[in-house]
Amino acid sequence: MSVARVGPLKLKAQIFCGDEPAIGPGKADLLEAIDCEGSISAAGRALGMSYRRTWLLVDSMNRCWVERLVETIAGGSRDRGARLTDTGRAVLAAYRLLERRMVDAAAGDGLDPLTALLRDAPLPPATAT
Amino acid sequence: MSVARVGPLKLKAQIFCGDEPAIGPGKADLLEAIDCEGSISAAGRALGMSYRRTWLLVDSMNRCWVERLVETIAGGSRDRGARLTDTGRAVLAAYRLLERRMVDAAAGDGLDPLTALLRDAPLPPATAT
Repeated sequence: MSVARVGPLKLKAQIFCGDEPAIGPGKADLLEAIDCEGSISAAGRALGMSYRRTWLLVDSMNRCWVERLVETIAGGSRDRGARLTDTGRAVLAAYRLLERRMVDAAAGDGLDPLTALLRDAPLPPATAT
Repeated sequence: MSVARVGPLKLKAQIFCGDEPAIGPGKADLLEAIDCEGSISAAGRALGMSYRRTWLLVDSMNRCWVERLVETIAGGSRDRGARLTDTGRAVLAAYRLLERRMVDAAAGDGLDPLTALLRDAPLPPATAT
């Protein structure tokens, strides 16, 4: 799951291939779920996504990198096995490291001036005019 | 405008006050537009947002920080002047610096392993099953 929160900061990092997000928080979570579940459809269920949406995200990732990130293992059903390729593992690890570097760069001096000015909770909304 | 792009990387950093985004790329752009235009409604128009949406974003920012970020200058019309408070300037500057630190941390060693594996353009989508 996403590592990209520190205190009040939430980070979303996306790597684009042309106009298409090649990896971001959701796709990284999906790669981890496929690695854990050994199946694309089980990974989608674990993340609460439809099979079609899951499949589209996998297809998108498989088209944006020099090699596919996810490969299915021989068999015929939707629940047949799937696994990350070496490139899939490399992209996932590099993305998580990138997130970590950015979060680490934000922590402390970068975030403190904002945290110091932030309320604990928002005031109630004003009445709309 | 947003500084949070470097090569194929797009960064979205949000600071939350409870469940409410207290600042992020859109609100930072709005603060800059208000500073530039001297008016909330003119700033919204410059960014292609409705007056209502612009007003809601300003109200949200004004409720999340220890002091309001935007103040209106005496007068009665929608186009009366508005300006950033000292806190507004401090939050905007600290947020842009935070983005810059995160982007700088991503550049080079962090991003190169991903860029090396990224296609120049995605392959065409597979036929949906």
